[in-house]
Parts: sequence; structure tokens; C-alpha cells
Amino acid sequence: MKTQRKLLNSAERCVDEALSGMVRASAGLSLLKGHRVLLRSDLHSLQGRVALLSGGGSGHEPAHAGTTPHERTHDAKAMHATAQTAPQVVPLASASSGVLLIVKNYTGDRLNFGLAAEQARNHGVAVDMVIVADDCAFNQPSKAGRRGLCGTVFAHKLAGALAEEGCSLDQIVTKMTEVLKGIGTLGVSLSPCSVPGCLPSFELPPGDMELGLGIHGEPGIKRSKLASADEVVKTMIDHMTNPDSQSHLPLKSGDNVVVCVNNLGALSCLEMAVVTRAAINCLEVRGVVVARVMSGSFMTSLEMAGVSLTLMKADQDVLRLFDAKTSAPAWPNLSSVCVSGRDYTTDPPAMGTRPAKKNDKCPLSPVMRKALENVCSTLLQQQEELNSLDRAAGDGDCGNTHAQAAKAIQEWLQSHVVPGCPGQLLSVLAGLVQEKMGGSSGALYSLFLTAAAGHVTEGQSNATAWARALHAGTQAMRRYGGADPGDRTMLDALCPAVDELMKLTTSPPGGEMAVLQAAVQKAASGAESTRDLIARAGRASYIAAERVTLPDPGAVAVAAIFRAVLQALEGRQ
Amino acid sequence: MKTQRKLLNSAERCVDEALSGMVRASAGLSLLKGHRVLLRSDLHSLQGRVALLSGGGSGHEPAHAGTTPHERTHDAKAMHATAQTAPQVVPLASASSGVLLIVKNYTGDRLNFGLAAEQARNHGVAVDMVIVADDCAFNQPSKAGRRGLCGTVFAHKLAGALAEEGCSLDQIVTKMTEVLKGIGTLGVSLSPCSVPGCLPSFELPPGDMELGLGIHGEPGIKRSKLASADEVVKTMIDHMTNPDSQSHLPLKSGDNVVVCVNNLGALSCLEMAVVTRAAINCLEVRGVVVARVMSGSFMTSLEMAGVSLTLMKADQDVLRLFDAKTSAPAWPNLSSVCVSGRDYTTDPPAMGTRPAKKNDKCPLSPVMRKALENVCSTLLQQQEELNSLDRAAGDGDCGNTHAQAAKAIQEWLQSHVVPGCPGQLLSVLAGLVQEKMGGSSGALYSLFLTAAAGHVTEGQSNATAWARALHAGTQAMRRYGGADPGDRTMLDALCPAVDELMKLTTSPPGGEMAVLQAAVQKAASGAESTRDLIARAGRASYIAAERVTLPDPGAVAVAAIFRAVLQALEGRQ
Repeated sequence: MKTQRKLLNSAERCVDEALSGMVRASAGLSLLKGHRVLLRSDLHSLQGRVALLSGGGSGHEPAHAGTTPHERTHDAKAMHATAQTAPQVVPLASASSGVLLIVKNYTGDRLNFGLAAEQARNHGVAVDMVIVADDCAFNQPSKAGRRGLCGTVFAHKLAGALAEEGCSLDQIVTKMTEVLKGIGTLGVSLSPCSVPGCLPSFELPPGDMELGLGIHGEPGIKRSKLASADEVVKTMIDHMTNPDSQSHLPLKSGDNVVVCVNNLGALSCLEMAVVTRAAINCLEVRGVVVARVMSGSFMTSLEMAGVSLTLMKADQDVLRLFDAKTSAPAWPNLSSVCVSGRDYTTDPPAMGTRPAKKNDKCPLSPVMRKALENVCSTLLQQQEELNSLDRAAGDGDCGNTHAQAAKAIQEWLQSHVVPGCPGQLLSVLAGLVQEKMGGSSGALYSLFLTAAAGHVTEGQSNATAWARALHAGTQAMRRYGGADPGDRTMLDALCPAVDELMKLTTSPPGGEMAVLQAAVQKAASGAESTRDLIARAGRASYIAAERVTLPDPGAVAVAAIFRAVLQALEGRQ
Repeated sequence: MKTQRKLLNSAERCVDEALSGMVRASAGLSLLKGHRVLLRSDLHSLQGRVALLSGGGSGHEPAHAGTTPHERTHDAKAMHATAQTAPQVVPLASASSGVLLIVKNYTGDRLNFGLAAEQARNHGVAVDMVIVADDCAFNQPSKAGRRGLCGTVFAHKLAGALAEEGCSLDQIVTKMTEVLKGIGTLGVSLSPCSVPGCLPSFELPPGDMELGLGIHGEPGIKRSKLASADEVVKTMIDHMTNPDSQSHLPLKSGDNVVVCVNNLGALSCLEMAVVTRAAINCLEVRGVVVARVMSGSFMTSLEMAGVSLTLMKADQDVLRLFDAKTSAPAWPNLSSVCVSGRDYTTDPPAMGTRPAKKNDKCPLSPVMRKALENVCSTLLQQQEELNSLDRAAGDGDCGNTHAQAAKAIQEWLQSHVVPGCPGQLLSVLAGLVQEKMGGSSGALYSLFLTAAAGHVTEGQSNATAWARALHAGTQAMRRYGGADPGDRTMLDALCPAVDELMKLTTSPPGGEMAVLQAAVQKAASGAESTRDLIARAGRASYIAAERVTLPDPGAVAVAAIFRAVLQALEGRQ
């Protein structure tokens, strides 16, 4: 075991620096000079209401300063060290109608906050304390009782809302005492954490998990091999609600709960979302109504990779307090809709397409069919040649990729009428290529075909329209693919050919076929020119400085396609 | 290298399950049936406004669904896999006045979103795209250009606010194109991450860091030993703003910026806060005005332990958009106050104390001084005995702890007049004990003295008052310490003695001294009785079943203190 490297300046200064970072980033907070205490910046607005004060060791950020809504907050000392709150509480108390201390059930925290309370009383301040003891780990808790865990965050929120509503200190204590009985928490961890400058708080072999740890890394109740997220969550909820355990949360079908899925530090957001799903499902299977869910980092244990689940039984009163607006910086952006029973899926809306064309044959259909057949057979003939070219600079599957597209188009041709509207055909081909060709080539051809499709319709499929269509396709390929001619890609064949074809838009003196023949020539010479080019886009660009002396297979394929189309058109004449 | 164990059900299902978890936890989101697409649940409210669509690979949660405000959101496929957005975009587009695609600059994302855009255009939808390329890592970016990183989250927010304001698609694209030029990002990582079911994306020895990684773990620009947080942040900002780099963000003194400190996955919240502080300081040292800061997990790389900094140049217009309200579930609870220049400290308010008493001597002073001197010398004499008792069940420093308190009180007595108000004296002692004695004992004695102090004043210091004071102290100790008589603690001596002293409140027939003598006896026998008790509180409770046959040192110390006070009082008579 080694001390873990952390992104800090020093173990000694880290708490003060973290408090500084938190207060600077949150305009709603202010640092009490000379103390490790964060206050609301708008203390004056509290006059006449009860102030909240929470705290404990550091290492649980964003708790406590980030999660205590409405009221003053406190954050002290490095993890495991005892908070010394007393000197700070007394002066704070003077600005409100009373102070409620929210304390996690650890002896050190109880003593120090107790001292603070007694000192405040000696100064004539109305002060009271609620102790959060929400840990469901131990079947038979020790004399010290259940530990205080992430349920504290619920206590912050609800007490804050009560204070904001103008409740008296007594009223808040009474209500919170009742609410706290309905809060239970259990954690699971896949890794230990370590206090800055110290060794990890315990050892846990990779692949193992420990159930029921405290947020300071205190021992849990069971160590086992890591199971699936669904199984782990079920184990946790089973244990939390097991009536045989003295520290269980009584939960029955029909009960309403608020769930907090709390990242203990280093679980990925992906895992957190999977666990959140599992928790909701597991509760709903038992007939429990999940009223609200919050998922994120609230009461952490430094960089511990783990998660805790907190369940709070909630009636309408509790939900009203939970939903109340707050300026606490770490409170999530939640909505106040019941999770269970909400319809959370949407049917895809109907396609807003142009009026459907009939797939009737028209004079163009046989020509287009012949061109496609020629293209497909050409690509299949050249499969090995293209693969071979690709082996020089890529993964050698360029021929296979094109062959897949060719076969897909052949299959489609066997069972479909070629529609008379060329745009409709190009859209069909775009879909086939995207689905069957795959990879960047599939996306690029699909882009080309899709962008071209809008320019050729049944009513407008003359040479000019086709030229503009191919030009639009090429432009889309360049725009989204980010390559240019000269980058050793298929564009080196495509662009000069399409530039030539654009002559069709201005009644070429030599006739349309001459332009087409010239375009095919340009494609071929463009492909050949890639021998001398350095790849700057596509997979070949990863082959460093060394010159590749064969032509680019993508460009060769484009030239072959152009030639195949020309042959088909010449065959018609 | 091994595949890292994760809290998931399966690598294959994790993306769909995570999407399910996200959508279930956020009432504002809805899952498009049959697709990996999350939508706003209130799509109808968008009519007439521009819809936003963002996405890319999974593994970056809460992006994209959680951070795209106001508009539709998309999340697709496992990390590294290419998103297939096209089939989903077209139907979505029909419910708004146009669709803006927000795309991170990766070839796969550009192609697939490009295809989606072209398909949408063929269906008559107004669609446009902004490409986020905010990576400042490479001095000479490749042909593919700068990568899209966490700046995308700013793009989500600003474009969403513009859409909400009713801007047209063209207006939003124009504004965003301008804003994106002023966004730069650089990341640093202390660990790799791994796609579920795969090996880590790269290796990084513990204690090393890599600067400039992509969010998929693509290589960075420099690997070095981990430096301090301040140094790392300075290196990052230096590099991001270095005019010699083609991808730098031009930043000069007087510029206003919004800063995003983005957790790449597994950095602890403590480290995040320290880095946030460092970033603000580093920018302010250069004369840059930090207008806003957001710090948290926004664009993650699974469980990568690292952080990225994103800077966005911000005029009043940008700040208005940044500050606009949003229902995006992962957007933090920010305030709209300028970070730089804000007074973020509060002076402790004046102590709201009772009218100060003069420290004059009074008839009681010599008695109280004598009692204290006796207590101190007794505790010092018994230091080794108490240590020895403590070694049987604790860490053997009970005598030392009490001796520290005794010495502190002796020192204080040498240079101070004992005040005539006993309550005032007890408060002084509480402070001394809390500060010098330390540990749980210090807190417990301090609690006792503080709670007692309020009951004995200059005007009310008769035997009844003293009895009530000691009773209140004992009650406070029990309440906050959580122990009871019989738990083998100092209470086993204290409680019977104080119960005896309470006879003073009802004119004891045998006189006050007799009660006091009886109380001292009770303390001694109570301490002796702890030989037979099993520890249930305090450190001794960690010594398992095995019986400790020596008395509890804390109880012995209490008995000694009682005896010392009695001797002093007897000496007076």
C-alpha cells in the first residue's frame, strides 16, 4: 500500500483551500474569517427565522456547505479529525431566531456540537440539535447507535424548508425527529479511499466489494465478490428493510419514498445511472412508490468508488419540503413529478415527409438499374485489388467494405422496382449503404447520396440537375468529413470529376457524353495522383511521414464507379 | 492490465440501462421509444422555437442529455462507437421551427450528424450544425482540427438560452459561431479509464499525469510526474493561452471569462474544490476577470481521475445567456454574481453576550482557587496511575491527558484573578480544557463545565445552585456523549456523586458538608464498581468480550477530582 497521489497542494492546506474554492465558486456562500465555516452570504435575510448549522469532518464534499439549504453551513477539519465548532457557533447565533444544529451520529461530532450548543445557551441563544443516525448496516448497532450518513442531506433540505417557511425551532425539531425515523441508508464500496497524506483507510482487493461501510471507511458488514448492479442493489434494499435487523427501515408495499443515489466519490456517472435504474426498479417491484429520485455526489468519502442508497419515507408534507426551492449550490435541478407511474417514453412522431411518390417504373428506371448493376459488379471484381491497396496504409478491408455495399444493392435490385424519381432511388441507396457498408466510408457515401437526392426528382432529372446533385453530395462530404482534395482520400477522384460534370449546367459545346467521358478521365487521373500525396485525413493519416506509393483505394473505387456508370450510359446510346 | 470491475449488469446493456436510469430520475426527460435518444418531456412547449440536438458516444454522462438545456437531447452508443443519429433526427425535427445540431469535432460525430442534417433537409426541415472544437492541447492540430471537449456544455447552455429567447436558427448559428471562437479547453489526467468490458484505454503509472488528453483517452501532449494543484493549473492555463500554439485561446488582462472546472470522472470533490480555487487565483493573477465558475461533473470520461478546464470569453450578452434559467437536470445551482471582486468573507459578528462581569475577587475566589489547585496537584500526582489503568483498555494516555489540563489550569491561575462569578470561572475552565486537554475527554469536560456554568452566578452560588449546575453538566455529558451509567465511563463515578449532591437542593438534615462527603464516597465507590463493568462506550468499548478487571481510569480521575475539591472545602472550614 502506498500513499495515493492526489491533485492537491498539500495535505495540511487542502481543507482550507477546498473551502476557499467552494466559497469562491458559490456567490451564495461566504467564509467566516479565521474559521473553517461557510455562511450564507445573505445572512441578513434570515432575521426572524431559524438558522441551520451543519458540519463535521471534511472529505464529504459537497456536504456540508453545499447541501445545507437556506441557512448557515459549516465545514471543518480533515476527515477523521474532530470538528471544533464551538467557538464558531456562538457568534453566528445572534442573527436569527434560533439555531438548529444538524449532527451526524459520531461521538466526536456529538460532543463538539453539544459543546457549541451549551455555549450558545449560556449566551442566551435558543439552540437545539437533531442527530442523524440513518445507517442501516448493523443488525445490532453498538451503544453508540447507528452512524450518520447521507440521510443528513435530506435532513438539511427538509429542515431548511421548514425554517424558510418560518417554523419555530421547536416545530422544526419535532418535525425532523419524526422524519428522521423514516430515513435509512446503506453503502457499498468497490475501493477504499485515503485521507490526503495517509495510507488508504482499508484494503479491498480489486473485484471485491464491501457492504455497509461508514463514510470514513469504517468497517462494513460483509465483503464479497462484486456482483451485478441489479444484484447489489437488491442485496442493499433487502438488508435495509429486513425486519430482523434492529436498524432496518420499515418499508411496505404502498409506501412512498424519496431515494438518494449518492456517489461516494469515484463511481462513473454511467454506473451511477445504472444503479439509479436498478434502485427504482427494485423498489417498484416491491410495490413501493418512488416519489422522487436524486442521483449524484452529495455526501462523499473522498475518492471511494462506491455508492450509497438513502430511502426516506415521504408523505405529501415531506414532499412539499423536499420540493421547496433552495439556493444550496450542490442541490440538483430536480422536478417535482412522481417518478413511479410517470410515462417516461415518447413514441416517435410520424415522419413529416413530402407526398409519397409511387414506385412506378419510368423511362429512366432501366438506365439507372443498368448503371447500378455495372457499379456493383465492378466493385465486386475489384474487391481484392482494393483490399490490397488498403493494406499499404489502412486495415486492408476497403474492398470488402465496398463489396458489402455492392451486394446489398444487388439484393435490393432483385426484389424492387427502381423508382422513376432519381432522388427517391438515391435516398434508398443512402439507407442501404449506411446500414450495410458501415464505417466512415458508409457514412460518407450515405452523406453524398442523401445530399444529392434532393436535387434530382422525377420532374427534374436532366444533366444539369444530375451535375448539381453530385456537386451537392461532394460538398456535403467535404463539409462534414473535413477533408479536402489533396488529402489523399476519395475526394481526389471525386472532386475533379464533379468539377468537370458541372460543365453540364451550361450547355457544353461538345455535348453531354463528352463531358461525362472527360469526368471519368478526371476521376481516374485524380485517383492515380494520390500515389504522390501524403494522407491528411482518414485512417491512412495515422501512417506517419513515410510515403505510401500506391494510390488511395477510396479514390480508386470512386474512379471505378464513375467508369461503370459511363459504360452503362454508353451502352444505352 | 486487467478489465476493471464496474458496478454494472453487463457491458452490452449498460448504455441502455444508464439512459433508462437518467430518464427515470429526471421528469423533464423522456426516452424516444426504440432509440437511444432522450427528449424533453414538454416537447409541445417548443412550437415555434428552434430545437437543439446534441449527442455522441456514451461514457460522458451527464452530457449530453443532462446538460442540453431547453431542447431535445440525444445520447448514443458506447464510447468509441459511432453514433447513428440520422434515423432519429428526421422525425424529431417536425415539432419545431428548426433544428440545431451541436456536434463535437470528431470525424464519426461530424459524419453521422451531417447525414442526419442532410436527411432532415430532404424532408424539408430547417437544420443547421455548429461544431465544437475547443481543445487547446496541440500546438499544430492535425487536419481533423481541434477536438470537441467540455466547451460543448457551454454551447448547449448558450444555444438553449438563445432558442428559449425565440431566436431564429440563423441567428443562433451566427451567435454560436462567434462564441465558440472564444472557448478553449485543456484536460489533465492522473489515471486512464476503461470502456465497460475493455482494457484501460492507456497506461499511466501511479504518480504520473498526462496533459491534454481527449475525452476518449486519446493521447495528450505531455506526460510528467504529478505536480501540485497550483502548478498543474498554471501549466494548463499557460498552455491554453500560449500564442505560439495554433489552438490557443487568446486571453489578455481585463478579459472576462466563464470557467468550467470539469471532473473527468473520479477526482474527489475535495480535489475539485482545490483545483477550482487554483484556477480562479491563476486567472486573477493575470488580470483576467472571472465572471462565473461552474465546478463539477459535466463532460466525463467514465472513471478517469482527472479534470479539464474550460474558459469561455464572456461579454454581457454571453453572461445573460449563461445565467438564463434552465431545466437541464445536470445544470448546477449557480448564482449570477461576478466571482472576481466579490467580497467572499464575513467578519465574525460581535459576541452577543450578557453584560460583562468584572473579574474582581470576591469572597468565593480564594476557595475556588484552593479547590482548583488541589484538583490540579492531585491529577498530576495520579498521572502515572491513570496511564497505567488506561493501558489495560485504551491507549495509555489518560493520565497524560488529565495532566495537560491540570498544567493549563495551573498556568492560568498564576496569571489571573479567579473571578467572583463561578459561572464565569467555569466558562474559562471549559475553554482551557477544550483547547489544552484535547480528545473526547477534553470535549466531555468542556461540555460539563459549559453546561454547568449557566447555573452558578455571582448572585446565585449557594449549595443548591452548585448542585443544579453539576447536575446540568452531567446531563449534557450524557446527552451528547451518548453513554449511560453502567457503560464503564467517567459517568459511573460522576452520576452517583451528583445524585447525592442533589440532596443539597432540599435543605439536607445532616448539613451540606455531610452531603458533600457522601458524594465523594459515592464517586469513589462508583469508580471502583467499574472493575466489573463491560465497556459499552468510549475507546475501551473496542476491546472485545474479554473482561477488563481494572477500574476505568476516567471514573478514577473523576473520583480523585471530587476528593480534591472536598479537601479544599474542608480546609476552609
